[in-house]
Amino acid sequence: MGLEKPDSDQLVVPADEEHPANLICELCRNFYGNGWVTGTGGGISIRDRSRNLIFLAPSGVQKERMMPLNIFVMDFKTKEYIRRPLKLKPSSCTPLFMATYIMRDTGACIHTHSQNAIMCTLLFEDVFEISCIEQIKAIPKVTGSGNLLYSDRLVIPIIENTEKEEQLEPSLRKAILDYPGTTAILVRRHGIYVWGETIWKAKIYNEAIDYLLELAVKMKQLGIPTVKSS
Amino acid sequence: MGLEKPDSDQLVVPADEEHPANLICELCRNFYGNGWVTGTGGGISIRDRSRNLIFLAPSGVQKERMMPLNIFVMDFKTKEYIRRPLKLKPSSCTPLFMATYIMRDTGACIHTHSQNAIMCTLLFEDVFEISCIEQIKAIPKVTGSGNLLYSDRLVIPIIENTEKEEQLEPSLRKAILDYPGTTAILVRRHGIYVWGETIWKAKIYNEAIDYLLELAVKMKQLGIPTVKSS
Amino acid sequence: MGLEKPDSDQLVVPADEEHPANLICELCRNFYGNGWVTGTGGGISIRDRSRNLIFLAPSGVQKERMMPLNIFVMDFKTKEYIRRPLKLKPSSCTPLFMATYIMRDTGACIHTHSQNAIMCTLLFEDVFEISCIEQIKAIPKVTGSGNLLYSDRLVIPIIENTEKEEQLEPSLRKAILDYPGTTAILVRRHGIYVWGETIWKAKIYNEAIDYLLELAVKMKQLGIPTVKSS
Amino acid sequence: MGLEKPDSDQLVVPADEEHPANLICELCRNFYGNGWVTGTGGGISIRDRSRNLIFLAPSGVQKERMMPLNIFVMDFKTKEYIRRPLKLKPSSCTPLFMATYIMRDTGACIHTHSQNAIMCTLLFEDVFEISCIEQIKAIPKVTGSGNLLYSDRLVIPIIENTEKEEQLEPSLRKAILDYPGTTAILVRRHGIYVWGETIWKAKIYNEAIDYLLELAVKMKQLGIPTVKSS
Repeated sequence: MGLEKPDSDQLVVPADEEHPANLICELCRNFYGNGWVTGTGGGISIRDRSRNLIFLAPSGVQKERMMPLNIFVMDFKTKEYIRRPLKLKPSSCTPLFMATYIMRDTGACIHTHSQNAIMCTLLFEDVFEISCIEQIKAIPKVTGSGNLLYSDRLVIPIIENTEKEEQLEPSLRKAILDYPGTTAILVRRHGIYVWGETIWKAKIYNEAIDYLLELAVKMKQLGIPTVKSS
Repeated sequence: MGLEKPDSDQLVVPADEEHPANLICELCRNFYGNGWVTGTGGGISIRDRSRNLIFLAPSGVQKERMMPLNIFVMDFKTKEYIRRPLKLKPSSCTPLFMATYIMRDTGACIHTHSQNAIMCTLLFEDVFEISCIEQIKAIPKVTGSGNLLYSDRLVIPIIENTEKEEQLEPSLRKAILDYPGTTAILVRRHGIYVWGETIWKAKIYNEAIDYLLELAVKMKQLGIPTVKSS
Repeated sequence: MGLEKPDSDQLVVPADEEHPANLICELCRNFYGNGWVTGTGGGISIRDRSRNLIFLAPSGVQKERMMPLNIFVMDFKTKEYIRRPLKLKPSSCTPLFMATYIMRDTGACIHTHSQNAIMCTLLFEDVFEISCIEQIKAIPKVTGSGNLLYSDRLVIPIIENTEKEEQLEPSLRKAILDYPGTTAILVRRHGIYVWGETIWKAKIYNEAIDYLLELAVKMKQLGIPTVKSS
Repeated sequence: MGLEKPDSDQLVVPADEEHPANLICELCRNFYGNGWVTGTGGGISIRDRSRNLIFLAPSGVQKERMMPLNIFVMDFKTKEYIRRPLKLKPSSCTPLFMATYIMRDTGACIHTHSQNAIMCTLLFEDVFEISCIEQIKAIPKVTGSGNLLYSDRLVIPIIENTEKEEQLEPSLRKAILDYPGTTAILVRRHGIYVWGETIWKAKIYNEAIDYLLELAVKMKQLGIPTVKSS
């Protein structure tokens, strides 16, 4: 610990385009373009199920300039880092990402500082709710197979922010238990955590949810309820 | 059916830049940049008149990462797929795209989840209407030759959304009959379908209409009527 | 006239990056990214003073896909086209661009369908006015040397739109005479014309004016006067 | 002075990607994409501590087209230019950048015409204030080590604009003294100056502050206080 292990570079030098270390960097550039990870905010983690490894973006690095060699790698079984880049610190999101891997057996977790997410935490109380928007059909049921229906109500719990990111863990774990059907958790005045079975599913859920959060802010501004009365 | 036909790859490996399989991918990247097809939403179809083939983007694929080999190809005469990529599902927009090909003899159809479209379906009742904006001149008369005049009223019907995309077909067909001059149909809380004689015309109409939808939302927010009283 | 003259291709095949035919295409891509020329709207013209030629973007072409071979070239002395691409029509903006070349001896003229421009023509009566914003210092005095001061009032006349673009010529000419200090004219519910001594100056003025138009809309929405009372 | 010194080109021909002349150009393109330096507005300066040199973007150049050969270089000890590109003028921001180097021993200073910055100077009186937003944790304490806490109040002083940029120097210097904990100063109806120990820190602070300014405008529009009452 605390030092780069010999030969650990090979863990993150992409053998192929879809290697987790490569995807983390590529998606961080995509997220930067969306304004989700400006000022080093936010983060991503991907799990390699076949090798039982967790890949993690580092703390405090400019997301659009991140390189595969900046990536941390953890052995999911021992929970020890097997690659820890010198001069970099592990992301403070790590315990939160790990909670989703452990509690939900997910394959990837995304954290953004999306302004749409923050605005919704200022406009909604305990949960974000929206119904009867086509994009809802991109969100999984989680507790059943398949995705939500158009007329289903998407509910995302909002937890209160804490001074330190890792202090969010208890309330994030509680929300995961209390809302077994959710694939995301909003953090008041902070941002959002979104996870999925694979990195691509997590990315799609995050895009679809951010789209719905953006739309909800516009609807609220015009006095249109986000949940349609039947 | 259900399997890729031998040698069907050649149907979608672009022989040239303007090949439908290539254009679908290129335009999906353009649309993704506009926020019209986030979270795998939306779709495009192009008709190859010379070979009487229909090219279709697949369901559930990230639009900005789509590759020509992901494209479905249908024989327009037999309405059977002559290329059906393994592991992918045909888009649920297909019956709607087909309705525009059959009823209007179009060359391409675009479907987006544009937020401007959705907002207008929340701000307008049965039809979207706007007049006296220069960009209206980019929209075709359809029932006559040439385009609308600056002072013409652009009218786009709004149909109600259904639980499944294919269930939209009857009301889309009805709207096409009821509004013989329209080149687009809005779907409440869902998005928009836009078609044209060629893919480039459809793309231009979609851009011009989205511009007008965006402007209409801004006008509504400031209390400015979208139809100018004479 | 009506046909491409032999060897006229050489007029638009860029010998260098700063060739007008190249710059028109490059700037159209830039403008497309800003939403100023969607749906084939808008246009650009550049004057080559040394050869006394006028380069003009064609009508109805997708601005982000324009190629140097699509460009029209006019002899400024005879006012005849010396290059007229087959299958393309000259821009209907041409008489308006020509008016700025003749009346103001400009080097380039830009026309956009900027939504900020349109919104300002809906929020202001006869003229757009703004003062005491730093960006005003990027706009030229025109009737004197140098640029406006921070505390100067930028005034841009607004003319009424007409059914056909070329019908704007009389009122555009009148506004150019009535407002000798303006480097731009807004067209109600249509867009803006901006010109300058060179294409780079015209581009900078257009960017700075659009920035001010965007800011003015935001200020109006919050009830902040755009002209600061002293 | 007034002429390019022989061989001064070598001062700005990037030996490596991280050379200040290269970074200034790269970041100006990034800032142009964010709308912070349109119409030649704004500027950047980087200090090379090892050689005691100051690199400065020139005045009146289009920021997205700037080249390393356009960069001015000043000897920080003598305060004389050792490279002064022919045909270009030094930025009028120079005395302000120098004030941050001298008074705060910074490594880089960024000036933008961000519309979020201007809107906040129209919505706040003497200072911009925000608290309890996660992104605040990206801003340094300055008077102590480390960054602000989530619940800390970020305070950025607003100084009044002057007719000429260099006339801002006295009030900028006063604000630097009056607010020893600030890493940025807003200029009413003009923009913002942000500095940091290195160019990367300055860039991160500028991004994080602009994010907070944008969020503050949205909060104000919805009547949500930017400083959370405890």
